[in-house]
Amino acid sequence: MAQNETIEKFLDGLASSAPTPGGGGAAAISGAMGAALVSMVCNLTIGKKKYVEVEADLKEVLAKSEALRATLTGMIADDVAAFDAVMGAYGLPKDTDAQKAARAERIQAALKEATDVPLACCRVCREVIDLAGIVAEKGNLNVISDAGVAVLSAYAGLRSAALNVYVNAKGLNDRAFAEERLKELEGLVGDAGALNERIYEVVKAKLV
Amino acid sequence: MAQNETIEKFLDGLASSAPTPGGGGAAAISGAMGAALVSMVCNLTIGKKKYVEVEADLKEVLAKSEALRATLTGMIADDVAAFDAVMGAYGLPKDTDAQKAARAERIQAALKEATDVPLACCRVCREVIDLAGIVAEKGNLNVISDAGVAVLSAYAGLRSAALNVYVNAKGLNDRAFAEERLKELEGLVGDAGALNERIYEVVKAKLV
Repeated sequence: MAQNETIEKFLDGLASSAPTPGGGGAAAISGAMGAALVSMVCNLTIGKKKYVEVEADLKEVLAKSEALRATLTGMIADDVAAFDAVMGAYGLPKDTDAQKAARAERIQAALKEATDVPLACCRVCREVIDLAGIVAEKGNLNVISDAGVAVLSAYAGLRSAALNVYVNAKGLNDRAFAEERLKELEGLVGDAGALNERIYEVVKAKLV
Repeated sequence: MAQNETIEKFLDGLASSAPTPGGGGAAAISGAMGAALVSMVCNLTIGKKKYVEVEADLKEVLAKSEALRATLTGMIADDVAAFDAVMGAYGLPKDTDAQKAARAERIQAALKEATDVPLACCRVCREVIDLAGIVAEKGNLNVISDAGVAVLSAYAGLRSAALNVYVNAKGLNDRAFAEERLKELEGLVGDAGALNERIYEVVKAKLV
């Protein structure tokens, strides 16, 4: 499992000419770091007298951020699997017409999966951004910069995964499938940039 | 060393109520993923006939991105050390006037280091953004989305580390020291947002 690799080994693999891990895995890690930092702010706020009024809210956020973190961590391996399936399909024999047809079908099926995997990552990163917004407002001031890093990481994860949706959707013959995914993606990315800046400014105003 | 932890263990530590690792480590990892992805695009472009004209340029980029990656990977541990030193200084005894003075001095010295460590991270992330711009223009089209993820990751690393500069500079009594760092930081962050968007658009135009 990808998440059991050391950070150094993962980075070595990312830098190498091996096709995986690639940008999709980096996107999942960015999202997972965002979720983890939301959890950190919650964990350092819950139980403090000064923050008793937000405790119930942040317990709810923490349950969500930990679930999202687990999902995103699993997506590091999902991305490798989806990409390897595309590469495997391209590597199928294409000597006969029957082989060509079977290969084309496998490529299309693999590309659909390789579109849906990063789209799922976008969906989850978007949820992390929303949670980061809550902890930026309500979290312990001593660790509020971590709420800022949370939103920046999750937003980078969202946009990074979006690039993988674009590149794989481009190769799909089933344009209805592709357009449906791209439409959902625009909804997820749409105001995320403005939201990211808004949350960043909430944090920065508490720092300087 | 932090980089020898597994990804999962690092994320667990990030999410926990332990003060380190925190946002500074996440910033260094974001930058290191950016540098690694620049290297990946170089490694998958160098040696290909179609890209022979950019080969010399990308070999130069690769040497730089690998050096920056090593620096950023080391910064995961630097951030922990700098933060622990600040916490250690705050934990010093303050019963006598002499102890109070010694403690205050140690806190200030530790805060200076905790300002300089993320500032160095910002500097290196900014260099990664510039290299991502080159590979977005010249890299192998088959992996150009990874150049996009590279710039998004490095930019998130830059802004994340900047938050740690702000928060530690705020506590410094030596305002000349603080202002000098904040001025350099503004120079590094200044046009980085516009540059990030420009490189992202170069990549996206090649994808859709």
